[in-house]
Amino acid sequence: MQRHFVQELDALKTNLIKMGSLAEQAISDAIRALLERQKKLAEQVVAQDQQIDSFEVTIDDEVVDLLALQQPVATDLRFIVAASKINNDLERIGDHAVNIAESALACSDLPPLKPMVDITQMAQITKNMLRDSIDGFIHNNAAVCKAVLKNDDIIDDLNKKVVHDVIEIMRENPAKIEQALEVIRVSRNLERVADLATNIAEEVIFMAEARVVKHHLGDSEVQGS
Amino acid sequence: MQRHFVQELDALKTNLIKMGSLAEQAISDAIRALLERQKKLAEQVVAQDQQIDSFEVTIDDEVVDLLALQQPVATDLRFIVAASKINNDLERIGDHAVNIAESALACSDLPPLKPMVDITQMAQITKNMLRDSIDGFIHNNAAVCKAVLKNDDIIDDLNKKVVHDVIEIMRENPAKIEQALEVIRVSRNLERVADLATNIAEEVIFMAEARVVKHHLGDSEVQGS
Repeated sequence: MQRHFVQELDALKTNLIKMGSLAEQAISDAIRALLERQKKLAEQVVAQDQQIDSFEVTIDDEVVDLLALQQPVATDLRFIVAASKINNDLERIGDHAVNIAESALACSDLPPLKPMVDITQMAQITKNMLRDSIDGFIHNNAAVCKAVLKNDDIIDDLNKKVVHDVIEIMRENPAKIEQALEVIRVSRNLERVADLATNIAEEVIFMAEARVVKHHLGDSEVQGS
Repeated sequence: MQRHFVQELDALKTNLIKMGSLAEQAISDAIRALLERQKKLAEQVVAQDQQIDSFEVTIDDEVVDLLALQQPVATDLRFIVAASKINNDLERIGDHAVNIAESALACSDLPPLKPMVDITQMAQITKNMLRDSIDGFIHNNAAVCKAVLKNDDIIDDLNKKVVHDVIEIMRENPAKIEQALEVIRVSRNLERVADLATNIAEEVIFMAEARVVKHHLGDSEVQGS
């Protein structure tokens, strides 16, 4: 039974890594579709979200089976509960990739806007945050995840800068309002992805240190744990 | 032990109802702050989000304790796992209320825009969706939750209408770009709240009927449940 449990836990980890890769790839492809005006790639991101959605259901079932059949306690239980939340976060990241891909489709026939440079940088940092938080989860590495938290502020600042720059463009050239709005939408979606990566990182630090960093409550010890 | 379990499960339900009320109130207050230009109320929504965040941590701890100490199976297990997800959804709704309150603060010294009528309607429908989905969860009422799913399309359409109308306003009057952007932000945040209420409704229908309505996979039976 114990051996079976270890195998099922490994299967859950493997599936979460796969789910993480799918989400990361979706963001990556959506941004590439936007920057390189690749309509087909954008359509592919929209279509492939169903795969991420199905995978979420599979992982949810694995979680419930593990809880029901193995009745884990302590560290294993915390890990499985965290896995369930992270699964949910990754599915949402897939939804944000779809939003970005939809903006890519809307922008594909319009001339590019200048703040795309910042979007490229935001996308790169966000993807790294996502990868590091998943790695941190799998290897129970709180240090990696603490670095993720710091990047969240950088993304917030970049998002503000993009919105500010785009407002200037709209003021100077009302003909560009539609594509400017799409750029703001992409920027806000990337900011949400960074938030979700931050959520994942906070879960990992919580598991590792049994402290609530979530909601930045600081160093308070968790009651009843 | 069994009696203790029933009590703990009831406590979890009660706390989720409270969490639902807090989230609903936050949305309600944020929208009122926006429409009535009440800066103080908007600031209050931002400040009170900490209460929702703390409550999420409390409910999370209750879920882990229930799983660890009572080792529930079957229906109870599904309920507790669903409670954990709904808890997470409600915390996010609190975050959207903060976003709306921030827009209320940004708009408070500017003249109102016409699409506020649609925002009022969106807010009303969204709050009802949220209330019905929580009621449906507590009373295991799938019928109520199916009605919630239908409203999601109405909200999507209203959101599109708001964005369309606001783009027209920006074109005609570039001086109004800043408040127009805030209205779009509010509209998109309400649309996300409606999505989260839909998530909750889908969880309830899933529990009640053991079918995956999530991601609109239709009538396919759940494997292994």
